[in-house]
Amino acid sequence: MSHMPIVLPFRTLAWEGEFHGRFLILDQRRLPRESVEIELETVEHVFEAIRTLAVRGAPAIGAAAAYGLVIGARRGKDAGEIRRLLHETASYLAGARPTARNLFWALNRVERAADAAAGTADPDTLLRTILSEAQAIEAEDRAACEAIGRHAMELLSEPVRAMTHCNAGALATCGIGTALAPLYVAHAWGREVSVLACETRPLLQGARLTAWELSQAGIDVAVCADSARAHLIRLGRVNCVIVGADRIARNGDAANKIGTYDLAIVAERHGIPVYVAAPLSTFDAGTAHGKDIPIEERSGVEVANLFDTGPIVPGGVPCLNPAFDVTPAALITAIVTEKGVAHPPNEETVGALLA
Amino acid sequence: MSHMPIVLPFRTLAWEGEFHGRFLILDQRRLPRESVEIELETVEHVFEAIRTLAVRGAPAIGAAAAYGLVIGARRGKDAGEIRRLLHETASYLAGARPTARNLFWALNRVERAADAAAGTADPDTLLRTILSEAQAIEAEDRAACEAIGRHAMELLSEPVRAMTHCNAGALATCGIGTALAPLYVAHAWGREVSVLACETRPLLQGARLTAWELSQAGIDVAVCADSARAHLIRLGRVNCVIVGADRIARNGDAANKIGTYDLAIVAERHGIPVYVAAPLSTFDAGTAHGKDIPIEERSGVEVANLFDTGPIVPGGVPCLNPAFDVTPAALITAIVTEKGVAHPPNEETVGALLA
Repeated sequence: MSHMPIVLPFRTLAWEGEFHGRFLILDQRRLPRESVEIELETVEHVFEAIRTLAVRGAPAIGAAAAYGLVIGARRGKDAGEIRRLLHETASYLAGARPTARNLFWALNRVERAADAAAGTADPDTLLRTILSEAQAIEAEDRAACEAIGRHAMELLSEPVRAMTHCNAGALATCGIGTALAPLYVAHAWGREVSVLACETRPLLQGARLTAWELSQAGIDVAVCADSARAHLIRLGRVNCVIVGADRIARNGDAANKIGTYDLAIVAERHGIPVYVAAPLSTFDAGTAHGKDIPIEERSGVEVANLFDTGPIVPGGVPCLNPAFDVTPAALITAIVTEKGVAHPPNEETVGALLA
Repeated sequence: MSHMPIVLPFRTLAWEGEFHGRFLILDQRRLPRESVEIELETVEHVFEAIRTLAVRGAPAIGAAAAYGLVIGARRGKDAGEIRRLLHETASYLAGARPTARNLFWALNRVERAADAAAGTADPDTLLRTILSEAQAIEAEDRAACEAIGRHAMELLSEPVRAMTHCNAGALATCGIGTALAPLYVAHAWGREVSVLACETRPLLQGARLTAWELSQAGIDVAVCADSARAHLIRLGRVNCVIVGADRIARNGDAANKIGTYDLAIVAERHGIPVYVAAPLSTFDAGTAHGKDIPIEERSGVEVANLFDTGPIVPGGVPCLNPAFDVTPAALITAIVTEKGVAHPPNEETVGALLA
C-alpha cells in the first residue's frame, strides 16, 4: 500500500513557472480524436475554454478560473491596478458557466486572498499571493481526489469490475477524479481493475472522456451504450457501480448525470453495490431531500443532434433533455468523500461527515 | 368504435399493378432527413434494400422478399423458366439478412405456392399465383397488426401516455406495426394519445423512425435519450410502456431490442404496466425460457461510430454491443397478439394463445 501521489500520463490543466508563467489545458473538445494541450494566454481564452467545455468538471473549472485571475491581474502595473483588474476579471469569468457553483467559489476565494494581502502589497508579492491561492485550490483538489480514492479501498472487492456513468474523472478535476479516483488507486496498488464506461447520452462524456483517460492510464476499459447496462449487469460483467455527484442532499439523495437513477435501480435489483464518490463541497446543507434539488432541463438540440453530426430526430418533434436525475439514498450503498465514508448514507452518517 | 382499416400517410412498401407492375419502398436509410419512395426494379435492388436496412423489421422484410420473387420470376419466358428463376431468386435473397426468420419463411411460402400451382401452369397464371401469395403475406400482416391494436384497447387507460423503445411500428411491418398498433388504434378511436420515444442507441430507431412515423400520423410524440427514461417515468410522464419483441419463449420471457429489460425494471418499480405487442410468429415454441434465447453480439463499430459521424470512442477501446436483451415474464404485464392477450404471460396463458 502506497500513499505516493498517482501521476497520470496527461494533465487536465497546468500552470508552468511563476506568475508570469504559462497556463496550459488539455483541450477536451478534441478528445478522443486528438489530445492537444493549448495555452490560454488571455482572460478571453480562459472564458472561452470554460464556456465551450475545453475545460470542464466543477473542480477543474474552479482551478482554471483561479489561474485566469492571475492572467488578468498581472497586466496591472501597480498593486491598485492589479486589484482592479483582478476583480474585473472575476466578474467577467463568472459569466462563463452561469450555474457552476465551484466557479464562483474559486473566484471569491482568490479575490479574498488578494484583498487580505493588499495592505503589504508590492506588485510582485500581490501577484505571487494570487498565484499561490490558485495553486492551493489546485493542490487541495488533487489531495481530495487522492483521499477519496483511498477511502474507497475499504469498500471495493477484488478484482474491481466497475461500471461508471459520465465522467467524474481526472479530466473533471485537478487530480485523479472523484468517481474514477478509487479505480486509479486500486490500479496503482496492484489490484486487478476493469471498467465498463457507459457512453452517457446525450453528450457522450463516458464514451469520449472516461474511456480516453482510463485507457491512457493503462486501465482496462470498454464502452457500452446506456441501453446495454442492465443486460451486461445481468451477465455478471461488473461487481460495483461508481459514479460522481453534482449535488447531495442532507439525507444522502444524490443528483448526478441523467441515467444514474436507473443504473442504481438496476444495480440494486442485481445485488450490485452503488458507490457515489464526491468531495464534501458537493453536499448542500441547505437541501434536506433529493426532491428539493431542481433539475436543469437543457436544450433538446443536444438530443436531436448527435455530437457533431446533423439531426437524427425529425424536425418539429420535441426532445426532452433533463440533464440530471436524483438517486435516492436508499439505492446508494455508500457515499465516499475525502473525509471518509457515509455507509449507508442517511441523515446521521452524512451529518457526521459534514460536522 | 370502428373496425375500418387505419390508413397512414406513408407506405412502408407497396406493389402497384399486376405481376408486371412496380415494387416501391420507403427508403428508411434516409429517414428522418427525407422521405423518399424508391422503386426496386431488380432482385439485386431488393437484396441491397434488405441488406442496407432501406426496408427493415421482420414482417416488412418478409413481404419485400416475397415481392422480390415476383421480380425475379417474371423474367422467365415459360413456366419452367419461371420456376427456375423463382428458386434461384429465393436462394439469393435468403442471404440478404442471414438471421431473419421471417425472410426464410416468406420465401418458402411463395415457393411452395408456386410449386403447388406448377401443374396447371401457363406462365401468366403461375406469375399471378406468385404475386397473389406475396400479396397474401402482406395482407395477413396488415390484418395481424390491426388485430394487435384492437386487442390492446382492453388494456390501455385513457389518456394513453405511452413510452416505447426502438421501432416496432408501421415502418417495420406492412400495416400499423406491432408495438405502435395500439397507439394508432387509440388515436383512430379518438382517444388522447401521447408517446415518448426512447432514442434507442446504438442505431437510433426510436429517434429516427418511431418519432417520424408517429408525427407523420399526427400523434403527439417526443424523444428522449435512453438515459432519461427513469427520470421521466418518475416524473409521471407516461402511464404505460409498449414494446415489440424479437422472440418470445413459452413461459412469456421476451427478447427485444437492447434497453428493454432495464426499461421494464424501472417501469415495475414505478407501478407502470409493461405491454409487449407481437404477432404469434414471434413465439418460439422450441424455447422454454428466456435464458435459452441466444443474444446476438453486433459489431462495436455501431457504438463507436455515432450514426453517420466519425468515431466518438478512443481507438483501441473495445465497445460491447449486445443487440437484444431478455425481459422476464414477471416484468411483463401482458403480451398482446393478433389472437388475443396473455395477461399475465406465463406457460398457461401463452400456451392458450399458441394452441
